[in-house]
Amino acid sequence: MSQLIPPTSPTPPVPPEDPARLSPGEARALFRAGLRVPTSGYAAGYAQANLIALPRDLAFDFLLFAQRNPKSCPVLDVTEPGETAASIFAGDIRTDLPAYRIYVNGEQVEETTDATAAWRDDLVAFLIGCSFTFETPMLEAGIPVRHIETGTNVAMYRTNRQCRPAGRLSGPLVVSMRPIPAAQVADAVRVTSRYPAVHGAPVHIGDPAALGIADLGRPDFGDPVEIHPGEIPVFWACGVTPQAAVMASAPEFAIGHAPGHMAITDVRDTTYQVP
Amino acid sequence: MSQLIPPTSPTPPVPPEDPARLSPGEARALFRAGLRVPTSGYAAGYAQANLIALPRDLAFDFLLFAQRNPKSCPVLDVTEPGETAASIFAGDIRTDLPAYRIYVNGEQVEETTDATAAWRDDLVAFLIGCSFTFETPMLEAGIPVRHIETGTNVAMYRTNRQCRPAGRLSGPLVVSMRPIPAAQVADAVRVTSRYPAVHGAPVHIGDPAALGIADLGRPDFGDPVEIHPGEIPVFWACGVTPQAAVMASAPEFAIGHAPGHMAITDVRDTTYQVP
Repeated sequence: MSQLIPPTSPTPPVPPEDPARLSPGEARALFRAGLRVPTSGYAAGYAQANLIALPRDLAFDFLLFAQRNPKSCPVLDVTEPGETAASIFAGDIRTDLPAYRIYVNGEQVEETTDATAAWRDDLVAFLIGCSFTFETPMLEAGIPVRHIETGTNVAMYRTNRQCRPAGRLSGPLVVSMRPIPAAQVADAVRVTSRYPAVHGAPVHIGDPAALGIADLGRPDFGDPVEIHPGEIPVFWACGVTPQAAVMASAPEFAIGHAPGHMAITDVRDTTYQVP
Repeated sequence: MSQLIPPTSPTPPVPPEDPARLSPGEARALFRAGLRVPTSGYAAGYAQANLIALPRDLAFDFLLFAQRNPKSCPVLDVTEPGETAASIFAGDIRTDLPAYRIYVNGEQVEETTDATAAWRDDLVAFLIGCSFTFETPMLEAGIPVRHIETGTNVAMYRTNRQCRPAGRLSGPLVVSMRPIPAAQVADAVRVTSRYPAVHGAPVHIGDPAALGIADLGRPDFGDPVEIHPGEIPVFWACGVTPQAAVMASAPEFAIGHAPGHMAITDVRDTTYQVP
């Protein structure tokens, strides 16, 4: 059961001409006012983050889940229970993402542009690295990013790989996919390897069937993208994995971002670069 | 109040001729039999780890403390409550380190070679990366490691830098120091940067006073080392930081390793190498 609540603003803002040039604060203000778009390509040069907020009682299980699955769940920041800002995110975590998903007992009960009404004082919010962060370095290295070219959401898939469980949490690895020209796959590995905190190197290159993905044209989250002749599908671990764990493990309550609709942080992407 | 309990074995084994050539299992067997030595230089090529075991009730606070202080507290593994082995450590965590420190309300009440009697079923054990792990790559790069040359423990110091607190845990950053010839300091940075999971690049190079260290000749943990003419003291974040937090925050109970007397894991040091 999924239900789209209309944005709080009666006339949501239109998408900006050049979203890459927005500052994080400007982008968050648009989302707070109701703009509902995937954030790939927004505020170029700033790290983006996945959100998963869980009751305090589940926070240890989740932090352990993240420690045991660092490729998919690299933790960038953790709030104190009930806090609505984070050290890397100066906005309001309940309103400043473009869209949220609310889960009760593992079922998505709502998708909304404003999570204020659903927020609880016992929620601990985790900000998890997002691969949108390394798309600026990819573009700078001349590697095409198809979903930015087409202005769509990245394609994401549940895989047949299980995460290492922790406490009450378990579930499958989720991946994002980008089609890369064969001659540039090595460059894509090299560039993204330098950003382990935002998923780092790919987890799989080539045959989607080996990950249990039957049809690349039907992603589980986001939009399909065209794969041109001579391109290879390249798969990176994805920060929607915590939400897949929520769906698989059915904790009492959780709030996540709508996949692809990220928290834009105040931290430069280069902060997460390793030599 | 500190008290050295005699080792369980009536005649503890003598240190081996060439400790670098021991396998992790062989080294652990010697420690289990009562050999009480610093582990720097043991089982070359295998990662070593700091131990901090805390009651389940404090596990989230500590995991959050580690997430907020990743340079000093890089988490390599976490056990389930009461478990005595870990996925990276096939031994018995209560007996297979050379020595342990037991803390009650933040006071060290005992130092022992066997923590079995003090162990509790509600303890969660955290294995934290140790800089001994990158000493093999340092030696391979021709960088001298003084405390291996002299067969002593590494010098460790409490600093005036406070860690970012988490829940009930706070305390100072602890560092280890190695004197490095000026011409090789850049190499030491380059080599150790590739091992962020075992403290990575130095946190400070040069003047100890800037870290609040008054006298390098009097380390807070381990042994002093001689600094030769032309050498610079180089400081790395140290996995004794969790124990300094225990001493500063006085949780009800904790068990740590004796500084420098590490858990030798079954994981190759190269596993933690980044490009």
